[in-house]
Amino acid sequence: MAGGELDRAMQYLAKLPGLGPRSARRAILHLMKRRESLMIPLAEALAEAARAVRPCSTCGNLDTVDPCGICTDPRRDPHTICVVEDVADVWALERAAAFGGRYHVIGGVLSALDGVGPDDLNVDTLVARASDPAVTEVILAMNATVDGQTTAHYIADRLAPTGVRVSRLAHGVPVGGELDYLDDGTLAQALRARQAV
Amino acid sequence: MAGGELDRAMQYLAKLPGLGPRSARRAILHLMKRRESLMIPLAEALAEAARAVRPCSTCGNLDTVDPCGICTDPRRDPHTICVVEDVADVWALERAAAFGGRYHVIGGVLSALDGVGPDDLNVDTLVARASDPAVTEVILAMNATVDGQTTAHYIADRLAPTGVRVSRLAHGVPVGGELDYLDDGTLAQALRARQAV
Ligand SMILES: [Zn+2]
Ligand SMILES: [Zn+2]
Repeated sequence: MAGGELDRAMQYLAKLPGLGPRSARRAILHLMKRRESLMIPLAEALAEAARAVRPCSTCGNLDTVDPCGICTDPRRDPHTICVVEDVADVWALERAAAFGGRYHVIGGVLSALDGVGPDDLNVDTLVARASDPAVTEVILAMNATVDGQTTAHYIADRLAPTGVRVSRLAHGVPVGGELDYLDDGTLAQALRARQAV
Repeated sequence: MAGGELDRAMQYLAKLPGLGPRSARRAILHLMKRRESLMIPLAEALAEAARAVRPCSTCGNLDTVDPCGICTDPRRDPHTICVVEDVADVWALERAAAFGGRYHVIGGVLSALDGVGPDDLNVDTLVARASDPAVTEVILAMNATVDGQTTAHYIADRLAPTGVRVSRLAHGVPVGGELDYLDDGTLAQALRARQAV
């Protein structure tokens, strides 16, 4: 009865993490009441982001340019690469303003349960980048979860032949905690006290 | 660093009820990973709904046609009007498939706190509809909140001169509800309105 257009928008909204059918219904009514100020601008921003934003072919970060703005920023240290699971972690570290090097987004963690194996992660490209003599250190900033730490060990093993120095974030990241949930101070502390692997 | 397009989409998503900045970040990354299957379809569905869906000028329900499909459905009882606060309540009653008449969406409740007065609600149009001799009953289906009940009393007073029969939803124990979890007011109401078996 809502009209096929509303139903379709609701069904898509309900697929977003944290939203279910009920909150999608509330969201679409909220949007319909703010047609000009929110609904149309959101639709346009989503369409424009879908069109213009792409993963950086060097590091996996999302940007409208490739390589991304971080990879090409001459003020950023080209000797240090911080390896993260996801783009959300790049954003968390950038918000903390605690890291001045470059990133590498591997795109997940090894997980037998979820069927994620080494070939599903961007590790080959990391090994290639780390083989450049200009790169002197790789910081493994995986989440402090079992899968995150398993993945960090796997990456450290893969990087060993390159001779690059490999470090990880200091404990201070709560066990079981995810980077994206941390306050900026904790994140900055953990980065400063990073340890050789 | 996310690119202005992603930031803008995130800021709009963060304005949806139930989403904040953090869940908006998760949502936009979820969408970017499903560009073709979810992000672009969602953007198109929102744009299309914003373009095509309008409030029914008779009852306030949302539809692509005006009057809406419920108002013009010849199978629905034209003698009974169910008054609800919001379109979400129309959808809830339609899902329950418990009502075969027509609706009237007043668009909120009287609230001194939120500065909502009688002129902000679609009550004049309800009184006009109820004045049609073909309409024999108006069911007030406001939420069982203080503001909802205040609003129901106000509407009942406004309808009195039309002579139409005015009823409200029964209060009681929700189907499947456990007494132990119910608030005292509901329990007392359910007891007072007890029915012979
Ligand atoms: Zn990059
Ligand atoms: Zn209608």
